[in-house]
Amino acid sequence: MSGSERQPQAGHVQLDSRPILPTTDGNENITEVDALNISRQSRDLEEQYKMDHKRRGVALIFNHEHFFWQLKLPDRRGTMVDRINLNRTFTDLGFEVRVFDDLKAKDVQKRIDEASKEDHSDADCFVCVFLSHGEDEHIYAYDEKIKIQTMTDMFRGDKCQSLVGKPKIFIIQACRGDQHDDAVIAHDAIDSRESPDNKTEVDAATVFTLPAGADFIMCYSVAQGYYSHRDIVNGSWYIQDLCETLRKHGSSGEFTELLTVVNRKVSHRRVGMCRDINAIGKKQIPSFASMLTKKLYFHPKSK
Amino acid sequence: MSGSERQPQAGHVQLDSRPILPTTDGNENITEVDALNISRQSRDLEEQYKMDHKRRGVALIFNHEHFFWQLKLPDRRGTMVDRINLNRTFTDLGFEVRVFDDLKAKDVQKRIDEASKEDHSDADCFVCVFLSHGEDEHIYAYDEKIKIQTMTDMFRGDKCQSLVGKPKIFIIQACRGDQHDDAVIAHDAIDSRESPDNKTEVDAATVFTLPAGADFIMCYSVAQGYYSHRDIVNGSWYIQDLCETLRKHGSSGEFTELLTVVNRKVSHRRVGMCRDINAIGKKQIPSFASMLTKKLYFHPKSK
Repeated sequence: MSGSERQPQAGHVQLDSRPILPTTDGNENITEVDALNISRQSRDLEEQYKMDHKRRGVALIFNHEHFFWQLKLPDRRGTMVDRINLNRTFTDLGFEVRVFDDLKAKDVQKRIDEASKEDHSDADCFVCVFLSHGEDEHIYAYDEKIKIQTMTDMFRGDKCQSLVGKPKIFIIQACRGDQHDDAVIAHDAIDSRESPDNKTEVDAATVFTLPAGADFIMCYSVAQGYYSHRDIVNGSWYIQDLCETLRKHGSSGEFTELLTVVNRKVSHRRVGMCRDINAIGKKQIPSFASMLTKKLYFHPKSK
Repeated sequence: MSGSERQPQAGHVQLDSRPILPTTDGNENITEVDALNISRQSRDLEEQYKMDHKRRGVALIFNHEHFFWQLKLPDRRGTMVDRINLNRTFTDLGFEVRVFDDLKAKDVQKRIDEASKEDHSDADCFVCVFLSHGEDEHIYAYDEKIKIQTMTDMFRGDKCQSLVGKPKIFIIQACRGDQHDDAVIAHDAIDSRESPDNKTEVDAATVFTLPAGADFIMCYSVAQGYYSHRDIVNGSWYIQDLCETLRKHGSSGEFTELLTVVNRKVSHRRVGMCRDINAIGKKQIPSFASMLTKKLYFHPKSK
């Protein structure tokens, strides 16, 4: 605990936050104090997660394209591009990537359970990605939905000791995929010479809460009240821009800074020249909920 | 829109994100291309909100200590310290602060409505703070609860044109304050010489969703599943640490970086040497949900 992390002081109303350093000789050197304050202040802002463990860590990717017919959920065309993109991006950042396609709920939970019981002592952090349809606080596996919080809870301090104090990153590309509701299929006509078969699928955002704890960060493809877009050829806008940004800046930039860039990139996209007039103006804005307590960098590991 | 914000390209699977600059002379100068890439890359990460408008902007503070007796909500002792602290901090950052105490729901909504209809053209941004009890996606005014989303919605692009593209900052210090549920009163005994009357009140976190849009940031005192603490003498831990951090680094540091410091400071606090054994180990972790699209600095305004 650094000197600036104080215990609550009973009965002392904290109205003036300027640090006061104790002096024993009664001969205060103001310059010294100021210099110390500055170095302490910048240390405050610059504190980083320790990211030089032997291993970067595990990245689980749960990819869902097809669903049990009784759920009446449409196929998520384009998700294989996201899966390939993410696999490459996180491998390049040094993660041990494990990809799972169209698992049933009990198998998703089994994989999560296994990962949470592993020893992460020599790992920097943990990543878990879901590519699927979502609803309220749930995400769909092949055959039924799973509450997001039941999965994040497995990595909280009491359940997964070897990840205490380490970043736990959840990335969730999901939206309500019920075509009978207000999903819209937009035939993207910008550049139909290249591929007349590409389509942008527009889904309404689902509602997510913030199930988490210290050192968690939840990265959502879309904020409530907005729309999520998935090109069936290029993959989802969010995962495209996330991977591009991570590949460009992932080994040098701070992770939440990169997510802000992704927010900007996705928010500037639009379905242009669309045959389906309902899709025009359907903007997307991602959102990340941070409970991180330090800066997070994926500096390259020395071999 | 900068050059790196691409429109989706139909039929072109974006697996390699390295920027390719077109050359017309067929005589590629690799060094030139790399240099351009680097400057474009750092521009990507460094893009900042324009914060040199004539005014910093309006900061509304809705402070709630007492509630209509039929709601059976306990007084929020210590909130006046938060109110004073926030008023000073945001005034120092150049905001036009407006403080409202114990307003009824219809008056809260009237003030919000007025603020959303003002002309913010010459302002940098907008801030709105709630200090109250909360429940699910609502916050309590004096006489009834208000859905947070109805308030944030008033500042979305279609409702408040003069804040489009500008940061809209909501700060919410709230938790479930039902003493009959699992709130705990902890008699803080660390430093009882100074004030034997100080107490730390521990409330369970309420659940918040993410109602927002582009350029919004929602700053919550506590994440789901954790506890929120309020010293009746010093004010709430979150507002204490937020104000301290803003005063120390607010005119130089990036806002989400500061919020990460606040996450750390609050998460390191604990109720120490507590007479009430139930309060020991009740940790607090704040959370911010960012839909910001650029970096946010409150650099001092030139007079």
